[in-house]
Amino acid sequence: MLRSLNHKTPPLLFNFNFNNLTSFHSRLKITQAFSSAVSPPSKAIIYESHGQPDAVTKLVDIPGVKVKENDVCVKMLAAPINPSDINRIQGVYPVRPEPPAVGGYEGVGEVHSVGTAVTAFSPGDWVIPSPPSFGTWQTYIVKDQNVWHKVNKGVPMEYAATITVNPLTALLMLEDCVTLNSAGDAIVQNGATSMVGQCVIQLAKSRGIHNINIIRDRPGVDEVKERLKDLGADEVFTESELEVKNVKSLLGGIPEPALGFNCVGGNSASLVLKFLRQGGTMVTYGGMSKKPVTVSTSAFIFKELSLRGFWLQNWLSTDKAQEGREMIDRLLGLVHEGKLKYKMELTPFTDFNTALDKALGKLGSQPKQVIKF
Amino acid sequence: MLRSLNHKTPPLLFNFNFNNLTSFHSRLKITQAFSSAVSPPSKAIIYESHGQPDAVTKLVDIPGVKVKENDVCVKMLAAPINPSDINRIQGVYPVRPEPPAVGGYEGVGEVHSVGTAVTAFSPGDWVIPSPPSFGTWQTYIVKDQNVWHKVNKGVPMEYAATITVNPLTALLMLEDCVTLNSAGDAIVQNGATSMVGQCVIQLAKSRGIHNINIIRDRPGVDEVKERLKDLGADEVFTESELEVKNVKSLLGGIPEPALGFNCVGGNSASLVLKFLRQGGTMVTYGGMSKKPVTVSTSAFIFKELSLRGFWLQNWLSTDKAQEGREMIDRLLGLVHEGKLKYKMELTPFTDFNTALDKALGKLGSQPKQVIKF
Repeated sequence: MLRSLNHKTPPLLFNFNFNNLTSFHSRLKITQAFSSAVSPPSKAIIYESHGQPDAVTKLVDIPGVKVKENDVCVKMLAAPINPSDINRIQGVYPVRPEPPAVGGYEGVGEVHSVGTAVTAFSPGDWVIPSPPSFGTWQTYIVKDQNVWHKVNKGVPMEYAATITVNPLTALLMLEDCVTLNSAGDAIVQNGATSMVGQCVIQLAKSRGIHNINIIRDRPGVDEVKERLKDLGADEVFTESELEVKNVKSLLGGIPEPALGFNCVGGNSASLVLKFLRQGGTMVTYGGMSKKPVTVSTSAFIFKELSLRGFWLQNWLSTDKAQEGREMIDRLLGLVHEGKLKYKMELTPFTDFNTALDKALGKLGSQPKQVIKF
Repeated sequence: MLRSLNHKTPPLLFNFNFNNLTSFHSRLKITQAFSSAVSPPSKAIIYESHGQPDAVTKLVDIPGVKVKENDVCVKMLAAPINPSDINRIQGVYPVRPEPPAVGGYEGVGEVHSVGTAVTAFSPGDWVIPSPPSFGTWQTYIVKDQNVWHKVNKGVPMEYAATITVNPLTALLMLEDCVTLNSAGDAIVQNGATSMVGQCVIQLAKSRGIHNINIIRDRPGVDEVKERLKDLGADEVFTESELEVKNVKSLLGGIPEPALGFNCVGGNSASLVLKFLRQGGTMVTYGGMSKKPVTVSTSAFIFKELSLRGFWLQNWLSTDKAQEGREMIDRLLGLVHEGKLKYKMELTPFTDFNTALDKALGKLGSQPKQVIKF
């Protein structure tokens, strides 16, 4: 029933052929007759074909499954709706389960029961799938114990549910791409109000790294700037404020940044490049404007700029699972100390459609939607 | 009289204020009175202001100068007209001497006389300025012995004159940017008929690295393809031949290239990117089309492409002078063995204006112009 897409595909949490639920039920009854432990029945958000998420997703009931000796049965507590979840449902994300599949990729749950050979987890523990795995939008998940990573229960569940996809991306981009000095170096980023952007500001600040932030022109821009400065932003500019001959004249005492992050593309990416110092690197991790990145020949040759991308899912697939878990523990430690925070909205699972509409942008600018089961 | 522009500027071979030649002559006479060795008078191509090379360059006579104890006086034999020489005269190259200045940047000469403390060079030796230095378009040059690198006299002078700017760029891009396996790996490049392009083909071939080449659509394309294949090209495509859904279907048995070289920009750079394998790198070292490089967000994130530039002048300024000289010796060794060749035309110094017109493209497609003094 489990399938692997390629070497980069993390294990599927849940993905089966819903076209044949009757047969599935029959087989399950047979299985149950030989099993001492079976998970509770589950409710899940599934999609039977790729398409617009508000058209193709639906809530279904899934019968309980056997908890084998090395399995852990987890009662999910919370799981976010990330842009990549939406892209997977749309069928435009390069690594994705084939439908029918359960939606979601990260989240946090509480251990409900464990298989007879499991000693590392006990009922009541909080766990996250790490690396993340497809299918977190359901109430009970049964998977091998290796899938799960026990996390600190001292943080709000919505942080444990969201700590991997965005905060870990921010931390890895800051630590893995270019060696920055703790004191005095600078970074520049666009899309600074995104969840990764908010994390970058705080993680840079905590290391004494100056951060220059670019945001879209929008209503209420002054409040947005204040909010980012409260998080630790040194400078926040709208794109139109950067329509000057030399953006570096706006740096004041901040050194020219060695590292830039781009999640927008188009003109906004060009602005990041303009800020970079000789030999600087721009890392692209998103493309919200759907516009490409355009770079002059002289910027490559004479300004010696380097451009690359960052993709968490790929980083985690390269034997970095344990390192990733340690970084997640660090990040949750920062959350616990109040040094890492970002805007989210917890929405009850029963209101999934509302959360999805908000995540799709149908209700204007909204905080990150996190489903509470 | 010598000046340094910044840390990246190689020493000037010759750069003085021609506005005051009379005073210069007077001072020279005083100097000569105290000197036992003075260079012969020189003829030089100078420019007194930036502008179009055919308008601002002129031939002048320069009086002999004193050969100090650590100096070597070199009678120049040959020096090329490279695109970067033209850009320096135009004032659009980022590192350049301020006019009035003598043109040229690389070349080969024969030692004419040496200062009293010089033991490493003897009259008759062939030498090149290494790293290259401004001001090679003149018949006699006097400079400190550290400027000069003795080269094998067993190669045609036009190769010794041109071995640094283009062949060394090709060698460094192949060896320094990405670790390629000797056997089986592949590279892709545009501008394959350029001098760097011709060198890349031969240097790749000599290491068993497959090479895929992209050229402009032009009259006589079949002959161009044949010529490049004779040098060792595995595949040669015109840009229009690559207007297919999936360029990789054209690779045949050649593996997807890990490394690409771009000296054109625009669509031609996009074609290089399309050939690259997952995680590949494109190095930009020129921009003949004057169009920028455009890259999609997904190519950065999901194809994990890296883009950077290569600038020989910068590489040579970073304590790599000795390594550069060793690589030049290797390259001249390949020339000597008949394993590295490229098209050039030797033009007498007296016909400098014709050579310049050819280098400026005013007489159609022409081989690299090398001035023979």
